[in-house]
Amino acid sequence: NLIFDVSEHPHRRYNPLKDEWILVSPHRAKRPWSGQSEKLSTTQLPTYDENCFLCPGNKRVSGEVNPDYQGTYVFANDFAALMPDSPEAPQSDNPLFQVMGVRGLSRVICFSPDHSKTLPELSVSEIRAVVDTWNEQLEELGKDYLWVQAFENKGEVMGCSQPHPHGQIWANSFLPNEVAAKERNLRNYYQQHGSNLLLDYANAELKDGSRTVVETEHWLAVVPYWAAWPFETLLLPKSAVKRMNELTSAQRDDLALALKLLTTRYDNLFECAFPYSMGWHYAPFFKDDRTLDHWQLHAVFYPPLLRSATIRKFMVGYEMLAEAQRDLTPEQAAARLAQLSDIHYKTK
Amino acid sequence: NLIFDVSEHPHRRYNPLKDEWILVSPHRAKRPWSGQSEKLSTTQLPTYDENCFLCPGNKRVSGEVNPDYQGTYVFANDFAALMPDSPEAPQSDNPLFQVMGVRGLSRVICFSPDHSKTLPELSVSEIRAVVDTWNEQLEELGKDYLWVQAFENKGEVMGCSQPHPHGQIWANSFLPNEVAAKERNLRNYYQQHGSNLLLDYANAELKDGSRTVVETEHWLAVVPYWAAWPFETLLLPKSAVKRMNELTSAQRDDLALALKLLTTRYDNLFECAFPYSMGWHYAPFFKDDRTLDHWQLHAVFYPPLLRSATIRKFMVGYEMLAEAQRDLTPEQAAARLAQLSDIHYKTK
Ligand SMILES: O=P(O)(O)O[C@H]1O[C@H](CO)[C@@H](O)[C@H](O)[C@H]1O
Ligand SMILES: O=P(O)(O)O[C@H]1O[C@H](CO)[C@@H](O)[C@H](O)[C@H]1O
Repeated sequence: NLIFDVSEHPHRRYNPLKDEWILVSPHRAKRPWSGQSEKLSTTQLPTYDENCFLCPGNKRVSGEVNPDYQGTYVFANDFAALMPDSPEAPQSDNPLFQVMGVRGLSRVICFSPDHSKTLPELSVSEIRAVVDTWNEQLEELGKDYLWVQAFENKGEVMGCSQPHPHGQIWANSFLPNEVAAKERNLRNYYQQHGSNLLLDYANAELKDGSRTVVETEHWLAVVPYWAAWPFETLLLPKSAVKRMNELTSAQRDDLALALKLLTTRYDNLFECAFPYSMGWHYAPFFKDDRTLDHWQLHAVFYPPLLRSATIRKFMVGYEMLAEAQRDLTPEQAAARLAQLSDIHYKTK
Repeated sequence: NLIFDVSEHPHRRYNPLKDEWILVSPHRAKRPWSGQSEKLSTTQLPTYDENCFLCPGNKRVSGEVNPDYQGTYVFANDFAALMPDSPEAPQSDNPLFQVMGVRGLSRVICFSPDHSKTLPELSVSEIRAVVDTWNEQLEELGKDYLWVQAFENKGEVMGCSQPHPHGQIWANSFLPNEVAAKERNLRNYYQQHGSNLLLDYANAELKDGSRTVVETEHWLAVVPYWAAWPFETLLLPKSAVKRMNELTSAQRDDLALALKLLTTRYDNLFECAFPYSMGWHYAPFFKDDRTLDHWQLHAVFYPPLLRSATIRKFMVGYEMLAEAQRDLTPEQAAARLAQLSDIHYKTK
């Protein structure tokens, strides 16, 4: 009779935010890899690139010229996936051919005028300016739209076509799938338990500690119990915060610090500009006065790398058709991140 | 007042199999691309490679030697994500830390002894042997397991580390997320409409024709109305078939033909070995005698390429955090695939 060992035996873990499971196969990290390796860019970028459409003073495809900006800079995406004035689609009465017109817009946020920098290489006060810009954008667009997704795709492997440090904002007249699922699952938990899922979770992780990567005065970053990507993290405030605009100035400064520490550890893991997609979830901008106590502001980081700066996890075949699968436990991933230095490897 | 034009205006479409939406941004295909491009392998592979662990007569990591097989060949994956004898996990009463022990196994199916071939380059009778092997595996493993996922990851970009033509079989003691969602949604549709969702859908597409890529006597391949990947397809029998073992010999021959036609068109689209993950869904092997009339056997193909043999769609940032998004309509994708030749570009 075998005794269950979480770091040895295949098992599933439940993701209460998605109401889905994830398959964990800890023994599988041992298999050799002879498949695709990613490009590793080690060239030091210049602080200004005349061919970059995000650098200050440069002309974009639209013909517009970027101002000589100092901190962050926001502009309308020249190839937006959404348009503010799209018409409504005609209704179909066949349940198999349902279509919905959507309105929206996309913006780009430059994090810094310095072409060569990434988030962890900015100072805490420069990152604080990014936090403030996210918040301004969410507040402004939340007046018109139900959902505003702030996110960053970092690295070529994450479909990012521009090394200049930047993120995006997509505003939507609708609640996208992932947010709709969280709305449902957070609400159900609140109704069943009378408490906020993510606050309960933060408290449990603060006690446990085995999945903690970074802890600051007001923030906690963990590899969540149900992480799908190898070094996925969840960044949570320690107290109740439904939306970014509720953060105090101290919580924002501390968020900038937590972001710097977390992304520095990411870069230090494989000594590379660690690729990921990250973004913010929070109480949607419902236009009625429903309760939102089940919501808690949080960021998620989905990084693809698994073994090294060039070997990633592929979420393909089984994962696409059946269920997400991971090759090391969240606790193993957290332990590796937690032991790393807070000083960026490039500055050592 | 704008009039809604499906090939011009952003909209969402409903996926009744997943009970999720997909964002369609048809105007976005026009944006320029300066991001990552995939490696295009154009070297002609040898029919036998002494370093390939799938070729006949070669020794694998496990020490086992492959027989001198002629048609298909199945063996246990030397680095399986699942184990047949995993122990049960202890129950937790915290809803945020739910774990489940799982049993399972993984096998590899070589499609052909010829190292240099891919599915569309095999003859219809060789593909028929693959169909028969899939069916034997599903039948055998379905006796012990609730779910058996047959799939193929093709191409380095889909995490495939071996060019030798092969697929995989993962057997599970549990119903994975994607299959559990289909079980739920197909059942709901059957209860509401008294008919089978995928049969109703096949009939509607047979009438419409605008999303049809390949039609044979017994099979239909369409870019589904709710496709997420640019050239995603759904391969369906035209009549009621719950599992692969219900297929007649004529339907199997015809399936081999449909697979050859579909994958040939894929290769012809960008004149390359078109990468994808594909696999089979069908009525799970429930051990009780519940009704399964809501199920219909079908295959899905998820190919990543968007613009050329080297430019793919990235499902990142917005897609991971909010909702899958596509840059051309399913009708545009189907029209491009439908007009291609049925003769493989390499043999022209
Ligand atoms: O089993 P393989 O081909 O080595 O590995 C590939 O397929 C598996 C099943 O989809 C995935 O879990 C792996 O991430 C992928 O690289
Ligand atoms: O908008 P970008 O950076 O050109 O494009 C990138 O991010 C988008 C939003 O996640 C994705 O839809 C694209 O597939 C990806 O390449």
